[in-house]
Amino acid sequence: MLSHVDNTAAVRAIVREAYVAGARRVSVHYADPHLRRAAVELGPDEMLGRSAPYLVDWYASWREEQPALISVHGDPEPELLADLDPERVARSEPVDLRTLTIGLVTERLVNWTIVAAPSAGWAQTVFGEPDVERLWDAVATAMRLDEPDPVGAWRDHCRTLRSRAAALNEHGFDTIRFRGPGTELTVGLLPGSLWVGAAATTRSGIEHVPNLPTEEVFTTPDWRRTSGVVRSTYPLAIGGTIVRDLEVRFEDGRAVGIEASSGVDVVRGQLQRDERAPFLGEIALVDGTSAVRKTGLVFSNTLYDENAACHIAYGSGLPFAVEGGGELGTDELVGAGINVSPVHTDFMVGSPEVDVDGLAADGTATPILRGDAWQL
Amino acid sequence: MLSHVDNTAAVRAIVREAYVAGARRVSVHYADPHLRRAAVELGPDEMLGRSAPYLVDWYASWREEQPALISVHGDPEPELLADLDPERVARSEPVDLRTLTIGLVTERLVNWTIVAAPSAGWAQTVFGEPDVERLWDAVATAMRLDEPDPVGAWRDHCRTLRSRAAALNEHGFDTIRFRGPGTELTVGLLPGSLWVGAAATTRSGIEHVPNLPTEEVFTTPDWRRTSGVVRSTYPLAIGGTIVRDLEVRFEDGRAVGIEASSGVDVVRGQLQRDERAPFLGEIALVDGTSAVRKTGLVFSNTLYDENAACHIAYGSGLPFAVEGGGELGTDELVGAGINVSPVHTDFMVGSPEVDVDGLAADGTATPILRGDAWQL
Repeated sequence: MLSHVDNTAAVRAIVREAYVAGARRVSVHYADPHLRRAAVELGPDEMLGRSAPYLVDWYASWREEQPALISVHGDPEPELLADLDPERVARSEPVDLRTLTIGLVTERLVNWTIVAAPSAGWAQTVFGEPDVERLWDAVATAMRLDEPDPVGAWRDHCRTLRSRAAALNEHGFDTIRFRGPGTELTVGLLPGSLWVGAAATTRSGIEHVPNLPTEEVFTTPDWRRTSGVVRSTYPLAIGGTIVRDLEVRFEDGRAVGIEASSGVDVVRGQLQRDERAPFLGEIALVDGTSAVRKTGLVFSNTLYDENAACHIAYGSGLPFAVEGGGELGTDELVGAGINVSPVHTDFMVGSPEVDVDGLAADGTATPILRGDAWQL
Repeated sequence: MLSHVDNTAAVRAIVREAYVAGARRVSVHYADPHLRRAAVELGPDEMLGRSAPYLVDWYASWREEQPALISVHGDPEPELLADLDPERVARSEPVDLRTLTIGLVTERLVNWTIVAAPSAGWAQTVFGEPDVERLWDAVATAMRLDEPDPVGAWRDHCRTLRSRAAALNEHGFDTIRFRGPGTELTVGLLPGSLWVGAAATTRSGIEHVPNLPTEEVFTTPDWRRTSGVVRSTYPLAIGGTIVRDLEVRFEDGRAVGIEASSGVDVVRGQLQRDERAPFLGEIALVDGTSAVRKTGLVFSNTLYDENAACHIAYGSGLPFAVEGGGELGTDELVGAGINVSPVHTDFMVGSPEVDVDGLAADGTATPILRGDAWQL
């Protein structure tokens, strides 16, 4: 397990359940973003972004060991690094560790999930006061814990997402178009792009829900075929900074113009991280029935906010979301239109005011979302 | 750095100072005793005491890398494991990791120190209420932080301890005798036993103070030559349990009778850990001028309490505290009278009512402590 150091209560509860479920060993690495802050502020330049070798070795060992991975997010201080040199912040990202986990995920070697645990700091960010109880209530809504049978509710919901994905796959759209205030964007899909959602299955056959909550159906687009402009509809918490009012212009797939009212340098830093970071790796559709949306809150936490609204991600694609993609080697993916990058950052572009259409190869448009309502 | 997961404030401050002092990388492992509790309660039997391989590898890498090691203690819940099966608690001790660190320390390969950070839970244990400010005040006294020049005060104090050690070495006592209520104990020294205190020096020449606070002068006795009975004068927090009113009887060096009003099974479990655990590895003298003693508190934390009173430790000896001991291989130590064990547990035996004498080979007694006052 990986967790922020402030989320001990949730971690301890999960560890106990893991043993009850038959785990032989539960190992937890508590990460502390203040240590990253110290390294950015005071550490030597050449060490930025170089994770401790013992952690790199540990992550690397998962390829062989194939453990179940649980990440407990819920950053109590999402703006912890916002006042630091953005260039050093960008370089301090643990890209070495992320590259290892992205490899495990794209090759479907491990069953994994990400959850978020309420903390005083996160509640402060959401409500302007550290009302943890209120945040737990919101999390209970978003996580369907307020249903009489939460597990049953999740199974039903996963069926809904799978039927949405099936409908999208049946249509076989060539392009997805977003139109709304400040947004006029087309995202070209691959002929083999597969819409997927809810549960995933490892190569060894273990079914798992990789994010909780999850409200999206998603696929990997052709990294060469995004163009237009898009205005983000939610703040975006990344790299210890909150990016607000993000606007991105794409040309021939590449993000070429980046503006924001705060945090723009962190996005620019990520996009400069490697040559493939500025291309899209994911497109995801979420409608207004989302349990996260029902809370009416902005969580400033991507796990939650990306499940309240349609979103796109620059950086790494998801090979399993492309027909035959899971069998391609890393060096074949880019040629097949599937992006490869150590970066993968989702940002929200959907809202009731943003229309989403599926376009056929001849340009015929089919409404997918209108006023947040699912149309297919 | 190693720290309890609740001690983030102290850890973060130390990490910043480490970078300011020129550290290239500061890695922190936050340990959470609740995970050990979960494993003892719910985990499989055969995994107890087997640390995660990535941690074992990390500890093992220090032999080559020789980093500076800082441990931040200050357990907020010293009785966390007290209600569990003592046999499983004893077997859940991370002996694999401790064996690696004991090796580094006895061979003087790394510079290291242990400090303790106040927390609400520790304050609750000390005062019966979570008064962290009051505990910080006590820690400031014990750590000489209330002196106008704390670093200068520590240098002076280290000189005092060194001169005490020199006086003891000059006397060349054969045996140390403790006499007080419930205590009549003789601890036989080795001809080469060296009294040391305060600062230590690594093989590579780095001087460091291995415990802060430190008020003791100590040596390694002959593991074969302890006999009599001893009554502990402080509670002893070990293995998630507080051992109270510990009484131990020694015959030919071996602890053969163990009684306590609480926690006795944890001590017995440790003594059964390996065949050499029941023999002494350390004897340490502390007088009433101790800054820890000045606080008048029982900290229920060995780092503090052992520096308020004379103490002895069963388990591993300290080869550097015996003439020529540092040059002996592990397999030669036992034959030379220096104990070797993965266990090393200090417990307090001194008080104003306990007289301490040094005995020459002919039995002549020289007072060392009377009413807690240093006599040499």
